[in-house]
Amino acid sequence: MSDPTSDGVEPLSRETVAVVGSGLIGASWAALFLAHGMTVRAWDPNPEALETLRGRVRLAVRQLRQLGCRGQGRLVIERDLAKALAGADFVQESTPERLELKHDLYETIEADISRGTVIASSTSSMTWSALSRKMRHPKRLVVAHPFNPPHLLPLVELYGAAPRPVSRAAAFFRRAGKTVVVLKKEAPGHVANRLASALWREAVHIVAEGIADVVDVDAALVDGPGLRWAVMGAHMTYHLGGGAGGIESYLEHLGPSQERRWQSLGSPRLTPRVRKKLIEGVLMEAAGRSIETLERERDAKLIRMLRARK
Amino acid sequence: MSDPTSDGVEPLSRETVAVVGSGLIGASWAALFLAHGMTVRAWDPNPEALETLRGRVRLAVRQLRQLGCRGQGRLVIERDLAKALAGADFVQESTPERLELKHDLYETIEADISRGTVIASSTSSMTWSALSRKMRHPKRLVVAHPFNPPHLLPLVELYGAAPRPVSRAAAFFRRAGKTVVVLKKEAPGHVANRLASALWREAVHIVAEGIADVVDVDAALVDGPGLRWAVMGAHMTYHLGGGAGGIESYLEHLGPSQERRWQSLGSPRLTPRVRKKLIEGVLMEAAGRSIETLERERDAKLIRMLRARK
Repeated sequence: MSDPTSDGVEPLSRETVAVVGSGLIGASWAALFLAHGMTVRAWDPNPEALETLRGRVRLAVRQLRQLGCRGQGRLVIERDLAKALAGADFVQESTPERLELKHDLYETIEADISRGTVIASSTSSMTWSALSRKMRHPKRLVVAHPFNPPHLLPLVELYGAAPRPVSRAAAFFRRAGKTVVVLKKEAPGHVANRLASALWREAVHIVAEGIADVVDVDAALVDGPGLRWAVMGAHMTYHLGGGAGGIESYLEHLGPSQERRWQSLGSPRLTPRVRKKLIEGVLMEAAGRSIETLERERDAKLIRMLRARK
Repeated sequence: MSDPTSDGVEPLSRETVAVVGSGLIGASWAALFLAHGMTVRAWDPNPEALETLRGRVRLAVRQLRQLGCRGQGRLVIERDLAKALAGADFVQESTPERLELKHDLYETIEADISRGTVIASSTSSMTWSALSRKMRHPKRLVVAHPFNPPHLLPLVELYGAAPRPVSRAAAFFRRAGKTVVVLKKEAPGHVANRLASALWREAVHIVAEGIADVVDVDAALVDGPGLRWAVMGAHMTYHLGGGAGGIESYLEHLGPSQERRWQSLGSPRLTPRVRKKLIEGVLMEAAGRSIETLERERDAKLIRMLRARK
């Protein structure tokens, strides 16, 4: 897939990105930026993470080659945060979801980078308001939440309080091949995880109520709505569900029945009994495959799907 | 794709299916059965539907050829229901969602078919209990809900009150290439539409609250969780989200935050203001493409995805 000649002649981007936090998400970001020709300076609060980083990045870059990403950026591993930040055009922070840790980190980062540099946070559970609270220049912070695995799933969700850093971040992520969705208002879980959480609540309810087993709920999703949502969004699906009259006709004729269905959806609790059912069901579905094997299978399929969807 | 020689020598199935109701869903079922070598006897309460049936079926069969379905069944269009039912090994009912219509129809069908023949209903909104209420032999009825478009999306959800008809129906649908999910307990919307409805409720909430626009919510789904759910179910996804400890670890460490997220999900109403936002957003996303064009685009992508996922 890779073509060293053209890679050498035409690097895709000359940017330098500081990858702050090099765990699962950070390594995946690093691979994506490298495969788009960027220079990555990676750091992690836990020095052990840096030891395995190169191997993890290599694997992800190999997957990106299969998707046609030919950039050959340079990976520099830094044990000193200030060095990782030196000369960074963009900062991607993917440290553990602990508010104090991030507040302290942002204080250090702000001291070390130039005023115009955007600090993007991969946070999945925290809001911009909470994260930026103690910053000197809070508007330079942009929430930039990827979907796991970040180097394969195109989505990045952005939220920031000022248009300039958000549009800079959007342009940056588009250069890295991402689909950018900008939130107009912040919300816990942003958009995608709110949707995922809403779906899972009902999936848990269905298992808890004994309507169907874990393995069957997952099969129904993957071979039904999931496959369709890989191709067409939920709103657009109801446009097609309305026949010739589209969404307007759908809302008129089937809106009331959707509202009734919403009333019938469950509000499960993760009690010990429900947890036990979920754990037993998932282990049955995994059928002895390790997490690593399941990830490999998922990634191989995702790559084939992404190539097919182009 | 098709190989007339092997098709002629080795028909995939010799069954005869009565397709009762030949609208959008019935035509799609007919195409699937034909492409698996079955004989289809099609009828519709509205004679006009039968006039366009052959053309609609031909288009869907052509799509199934791209998925490697090589059967060449025979399509017989009947204006008389009794003739469509004569000699049927299986009945697939896909008439409009009106309870009285279906009750009357089942009375006729029961009189015309042999005792062991299963009557499968494509109903999306009705339960087995409601549908079977007036039947002489209610246990022969099986809810068999496909996901639109039924000839392309693999899922069929089954529910019946007796094991024998359900296992017969399951075997039949597997011969027709479907992924079969059997519900242990009936529920309005079965499994897949309950999941879809739960997700859409939150998608509507996000638009109603001004967090993101219709087009962005759809993009986030398609390039984030949707794509992943085409490959891996929701429960299994959280197994991988738990790291080395899997679902057990996920539930222990992140279960409480999921429960809090569930509390934060919306309960929108389809008020005139919300409807207007949805309609405007969907029309913007459609960008002038007709329903027919959107369907064609969806189907072409679904076919490529199905081939890639194999």
